[in-house]
Amino acid sequence: MSQLCEASGVSVPSIKFYLREGLLPAGERTSATQAEYGPEHVERLRLIRALIDIGGLSVATAQRVLEAIDSPDLPLSYVFGVAQYAISDTSLYADVPEGSAGTAQVNDLIGSTGWLVSDDNPGRRGAARVLDTYADLGQNHIGEHLPAYAEAAELIARADLAAVAHHTDVADMAETVVVGTVLGDALNASLRRMAQEHVSYQVFPAPRGAEPSGSER
Amino acid sequence: MSQLCEASGVSVPSIKFYLREGLLPAGERTSATQAEYGPEHVERLRLIRALIDIGGLSVATAQRVLEAIDSPDLPLSYVFGVAQYAISDTSLYADVPEGSAGTAQVNDLIGSTGWLVSDDNPGRRGAARVLDTYADLGQNHIGEHLPAYAEAAELIARADLAAVAHHTDVADMAETVVVGTVLGDALNASLRRMAQEHVSYQVFPAPRGAEPSGSER
Repeated sequence: MSQLCEASGVSVPSIKFYLREGLLPAGERTSATQAEYGPEHVERLRLIRALIDIGGLSVATAQRVLEAIDSPDLPLSYVFGVAQYAISDTSLYADVPEGSAGTAQVNDLIGSTGWLVSDDNPGRRGAARVLDTYADLGQNHIGEHLPAYAEAAELIARADLAAVAHHTDVADMAETVVVGTVLGDALNASLRRMAQEHVSYQVFPAPRGAEPSGSER
Repeated sequence: MSQLCEASGVSVPSIKFYLREGLLPAGERTSATQAEYGPEHVERLRLIRALIDIGGLSVATAQRVLEAIDSPDLPLSYVFGVAQYAISDTSLYADVPEGSAGTAQVNDLIGSTGWLVSDDNPGRRGAARVLDTYADLGQNHIGEHLPAYAEAAELIARADLAAVAHHTDVADMAETVVVGTVLGDALNASLRRMAQEHVSYQVFPAPRGAEPSGSER
């Protein structure tokens, strides 16, 4: 176990905890006090840490996601669903009042994009909640920009699915779906922050000489 | 104060707390036990709740962001920066080891897009951390899709800045920057979940009859 700790960078108490909670499968017992762990244990530990540290999932939620990955008979769309729902298990994606203006805006957007989206996709509720909040703050003009945001979302989703299609093994595909869903939100938010800075210099030009030294054109 | 509670939907203990912490400016005192609050107080309370409930900011962070909004002499790019940094005050955007492979990938991406991005933009560290985590998980192929994610981020940033340019008043612009930064991540993540479902039916066709009833083409 101390070698597993070294190879994965995860502490022994954490490894014991993940074993006890069933997130990490047991090693092959070689004596009363010794067990053998393989590279698949190191990989699984890295996945657990990515889900919890970067994705911000609770241990219980990570467990649910790993169970879906470990079920090779489940269709990939189901694994996708479990990952989406688990990661979306926050107040943002909770139910919104029926017939809210935001819900109507989301339905209109889905109609105009032609997206096939099931009624219980958590994104529907998340987007409706955000749009209702914009309206509460008197910022209704956001609606004009929804087609642009939807176009960007479709670009992102196509890249997401292309990354999944790199794999042929179902377990690898499932892992890519989960990792991509968790890490992707963080990647997209990070890229958005950089793009915002770049575009803001074009829209609101800074005084001469105040540009950053990040890049030369 | 009970009228303010009714108009804003925020409880009296919360209102008292925000007054004490300086997030909400004091009302005009009309007697020893009475103060008058105007519509600007209702608006401010809605903004506070959006930052804390949807944006997930701590009270201390919300305070820092509101201070930037309240300083009309600050350039808009500075308000943008404060909002970005405050919202990015999580472990995702913490320092990454110098010379990490993810940092090199981010530098390459900035070079190839021609983006102007200052060295301390938190998105640089967030993206580098995510890319390092992908590599740890053996998922290096994500690099191929970075240009697509960057293109989507620039689309999003142009819509973000267009929403800011709707306003001419600096305080309104600053509020749009803050609200858009906080709510935008949630909106984009929600739209991504819907687009993923739509694209997944195209890439991995479901058995006939298993499509959802969300939209007809």
